[in-house]
Amino acid sequence: MRESIMYKIAVDAMGGDNAPEAIVAGIEQARDKMPDTEFLLFGQLDKVKPLVKNAERLTLIQSDEVVEMGEEPVKAIRRKKQSSLVMAAQAVKDGEADAIFSAGNTGALLAVGIFTVGRIRGIDRPALLTVLPALDGPHEAFAMMDVGANAENRPRHLYQYGILGSFYAKEVLGFDNPRVGLLNNGTEEDKGDPIHKEAHQLLKHGAVQSYLNFVGNVESRDILQGPADVVVADGFSGNAALKATEGTALAMLRLIKHAILDGNVKTKLAGLMLKPAMKDIQSRLDYSQHGGAVVIGVKAPVVKTHGSAGPSAVANTMVQIHTMLETDLVAKTEAFVAEHKTDLSKSAK
Amino acid sequence: MRESIMYKIAVDAMGGDNAPEAIVAGIEQARDKMPDTEFLLFGQLDKVKPLVKNAERLTLIQSDEVVEMGEEPVKAIRRKKQSSLVMAAQAVKDGEADAIFSAGNTGALLAVGIFTVGRIRGIDRPALLTVLPALDGPHEAFAMMDVGANAENRPRHLYQYGILGSFYAKEVLGFDNPRVGLLNNGTEEDKGDPIHKEAHQLLKHGAVQSYLNFVGNVESRDILQGPADVVVADGFSGNAALKATEGTALAMLRLIKHAILDGNVKTKLAGLMLKPAMKDIQSRLDYSQHGGAVVIGVKAPVVKTHGSAGPSAVANTMVQIHTMLETDLVAKTEAFVAEHKTDLSKSAK
Repeated sequence: MRESIMYKIAVDAMGGDNAPEAIVAGIEQARDKMPDTEFLLFGQLDKVKPLVKNAERLTLIQSDEVVEMGEEPVKAIRRKKQSSLVMAAQAVKDGEADAIFSAGNTGALLAVGIFTVGRIRGIDRPALLTVLPALDGPHEAFAMMDVGANAENRPRHLYQYGILGSFYAKEVLGFDNPRVGLLNNGTEEDKGDPIHKEAHQLLKHGAVQSYLNFVGNVESRDILQGPADVVVADGFSGNAALKATEGTALAMLRLIKHAILDGNVKTKLAGLMLKPAMKDIQSRLDYSQHGGAVVIGVKAPVVKTHGSAGPSAVANTMVQIHTMLETDLVAKTEAFVAEHKTDLSKSAK
Repeated sequence: MRESIMYKIAVDAMGGDNAPEAIVAGIEQARDKMPDTEFLLFGQLDKVKPLVKNAERLTLIQSDEVVEMGEEPVKAIRRKKQSSLVMAAQAVKDGEADAIFSAGNTGALLAVGIFTVGRIRGIDRPALLTVLPALDGPHEAFAMMDVGANAENRPRHLYQYGILGSFYAKEVLGFDNPRVGLLNNGTEEDKGDPIHKEAHQLLKHGAVQSYLNFVGNVESRDILQGPADVVVADGFSGNAALKATEGTALAMLRLIKHAILDGNVKTKLAGLMLKPAMKDIQSRLDYSQHGGAVVIGVKAPVVKTHGSAGPSAVANTMVQIHTMLETDLVAKTEAFVAEHKTDLSKSAK
């Protein structure tokens, strides 16, 4: 007997380096594991249709245009109303789908999240949230936001991120009473520029502190060790810290690979013998198992995975979106924010 | 025949986790290689004197106090006039020494650099400059600044850092026509908050561009690959990027070590066989070979090395200071800044 459909996910089938092949394959993997979910695939049907192996719970919708990776986001979404991305977002706005997924242009996804899906009332600036591995903490991962939706943030945005991140960590990652840290240039309370000093005070003394478990400032040097389950950052330095972390991890792996390839026979043999251990390390660092980056603070799950994602990263992201829908993350966040609107919109004294 | 003394370096013998032992040992190593340099060691003589093996070109000066690692910098240097750090800085101010070195409290060294040694006229905000490995560029290292002297910067500060960094890269690192990049949240010209957009324009169109070889924005993901010889950053995000880079490199090395130690016999054997290659990687990443962090934009070389530095890191830092003195870095920078004062103090249009 067929289960009833609970959720519908709108998919930009054309976004990403490996689209539409990897997208369709990933969606089919996910579909087979999620009997309660239907997928609306927006894309060029002459390309998408031949890739579909089994049409069960897949609805294909023609979209004539594609938002390319390099395009200026806001212009692109204004001009390309018939693009797979904009049509998918419109489906969420019109209530035909519950969430949107894309592996394409991040800025454009952010733009449809903010302008088409819309902000949660009481949240000033939606942010980009990503999940990273926590190598030495009580949990194996942590959420960090904003990692680049905004070039500038005010203290109250960071305060709001504390709440948005806490809900995400609790509902989607399943952490009890998640520890919230503020990314700052020192651990002492008085560190940082005026924005971070004021954000610290709001996070520490705001009226929502009974919900928000603020553990103080954290430094980018330590975040991978897991000193906090939610790392709140302004979009500019959060982006700098995230990219430096990613870049350094990749550089290290490359250095090791080259050392082995350029080494003598003994080194090469050792490299072969170490392969399983290195694979293990790579998988601990690979955070695509926790899904993709989330546009948080908007009225529906808006989620992306990296442009080079293969089918399994796409499928993992569907699991993440499914959890967001199942736990009713957005509605819970909306209710909380509505209740504490006055507090969340204030500045520190 | 004894060579004549050209340079005098004032040393805070009490700063750092391994002081005064590592400091004295490092200074003696350096002294043996620099026949033209005399060292003024400020510290508690009952502790310092017994450590000295050979007193040649070492002058020991009693200082009753020590600025501790955790102390609030500005307060500490105001109150502890008899500390090894403040007395060493005073010696530079009084013309008795040409440069100052400490492995102690970074903030306090910064404070004596700015308040005791003094800013170069025309430089608004001295910065902390550090040298990092460039894994894939034309040179093996690059200079980055500000990595944390300032919590906030204005566009013209970043413009000035372009000049200060270029002089450092040219004179001390020996690079011709060093490529200057601006750390930003994207490579496109219009990326960033208003501060970075304006700084980009100043670096690109300022009157000193004949000297300043600006190559545009760089992202923290790429800096270790060496896209620029001088990376200009505001103190807040520069600090975040540097610490994330350091933290991730350490986390990776730890992961590999644990994978080997916790592995089976084969993995452990492979680990042993890989040791030389891993040592090689660690030494490529170890930027203490390029010396310590420099307070740049002040009237004399003010240089620190990390608190846990051993004798050879101290000795390397002396080589760096010696190069700064030998190339007359400060006087050359001062002359250039004086000549372009009007341009360097302006805002972008």
